[in-house]
Amino acid sequence: MTEVIENFPGFPGGIETIELIKRMQEQVAALGVNIASEEAIEIDCKFKTVKTNAATHSAGAIIIATGAHPRKIGVPGEDELTGRGVSYCATCDAPLYRNKDIVIVGGGNAMAEEALYLTRFAKSVNIIHRREQLRASPILQEKLKKNKKIKFTLSSIIMEINGSSRVESVKIKDLNTTQEKNIQCDGIFIYIGYLPDTILVKDKLKLDGNGFIISGDDLSTSEEGIFACGDCRNKTLYQVINACGDGAVAADSEYKYLANRD
Amino acid sequence: MTEVIENFPGFPGGIETIELIKRMQEQVAALGVNIASEEAIEIDCKFKTVKTNAATHSAGAIIIATGAHPRKIGVPGEDELTGRGVSYCATCDAPLYRNKDIVIVGGGNAMAEEALYLTRFAKSVNIIHRREQLRASPILQEKLKKNKKIKFTLSSIIMEINGSSRVESVKIKDLNTTQEKNIQCDGIFIYIGYLPDTILVKDKLKLDGNGFIISGDDLSTSEEGIFACGDCRNKTLYQVINACGDGAVAADSEYKYLANRD
Repeated sequence: MTEVIENFPGFPGGIETIELIKRMQEQVAALGVNIASEEAIEIDCKFKTVKTNAATHSAGAIIIATGAHPRKIGVPGEDELTGRGVSYCATCDAPLYRNKDIVIVGGGNAMAEEALYLTRFAKSVNIIHRREQLRASPILQEKLKKNKKIKFTLSSIIMEINGSSRVESVKIKDLNTTQEKNIQCDGIFIYIGYLPDTILVKDKLKLDGNGFIISGDDLSTSEEGIFACGDCRNKTLYQVINACGDGAVAADSEYKYLANRD
Repeated sequence: MTEVIENFPGFPGGIETIELIKRMQEQVAALGVNIASEEAIEIDCKFKTVKTNAATHSAGAIIIATGAHPRKIGVPGEDELTGRGVSYCATCDAPLYRNKDIVIVGGGNAMAEEALYLTRFAKSVNIIHRREQLRASPILQEKLKKNKKIKFTLSSIIMEINGSSRVESVKIKDLNTTQEKNIQCDGIFIYIGYLPDTILVKDKLKLDGNGFIISGDDLSTSEEGIFACGDCRNKTLYQVINACGDGAVAADSEYKYLANRD
């Protein structure tokens, strides 16, 4: 979802996402790895088969790497301007907003931590939240209030994200007065949840309350011979570099699982 | 310890280790990170200070990333030929030994798993172990015995590793007969243990039986505000890519720790 990845070690100045993907594909293809571009429809954890729209694949073990996606607001302009002012990742995109005016949507700890982080770059950070109060911890709320770059626009929801080639403003609605107004901004960061793409393994693997796969240190799951890696599993940070680290750990664990099997 | 890293995602064909390090240094330097090339001598986990040979640094939190090193046999030729036939990492170097004759030293599961892996590339794999029997699990031992590429040289120890520019042979001693003989080989893989460099935090952080730092999912340690990442911590795979993933997780956890502190 980002055009350029700035925080992948080994690429000072960043690398275009599409270029990084191309390099990784080339690298695994040279090792003889087969990539089937098919949609997985059903997984049998016991017999280790994956049914897709085109075939049924059978294996000794399976690694689940189905990822996750940010929850969207679902307003006009959101999809069109994603990557052009609409962002779901301050860790990725904050440096692009040096001395800019931004809004951030959400009310929890993740929003609060990222809002504080964004003040290191942005000129102003306007927190838009639908309730009268944030859910974030008291200490975080205290820090937000003390920070002069931070403004609060509470009891308000986003109606539209506007801009011709990039985000220029957002239209918000005050839920108390029902009045609408435009807020000029160069970017909008959305922190209203991160949803795992784990429907394939629902009722098959142990998931946490949010649907992320629960895994051990070796990335094994609740089913023998099934491993999980990347954003579909329960963890504390969702970035490309630790998804790659996960991939290596899961592959190694799978290899050891197969080597130690009768 | 390896000249070229083949398994770091994003670099098809591999990248020279020194080049990858240079790129990472350049990348963090551009973000304003200060690197003090000093030797850490003492850490105070409570007051978050690090005393070095040159100064005392004070911080709000500390990430320990002191690494680990393979246990060496300690024989002539071992240091001189490291990276030129002497290897401590089959995962890294196995592809360099296509159709070659290699020896592998050790007796545990790690040795057995890697010996099986090496047979996918090498012409022959000769297991040299000082005892009469391996310690590896029965299933792994069965697989080793069934594999036609694998030979056993038991009750034997390495006396010397020989070669002018690369490994050419090893001199071994049979502990029963005390006779010495040379075995021709193109490489020697050593699997007699992996030792953490955690002397700085001994008696300060909770360590496992082998001295590796015990950490949670967020890479926090037994002391508040102290995090651990990379090979110095207890984990299942010790490769550059998951050390990098660890680094990102530890940095993010440290940031959240500081943001949530009074």
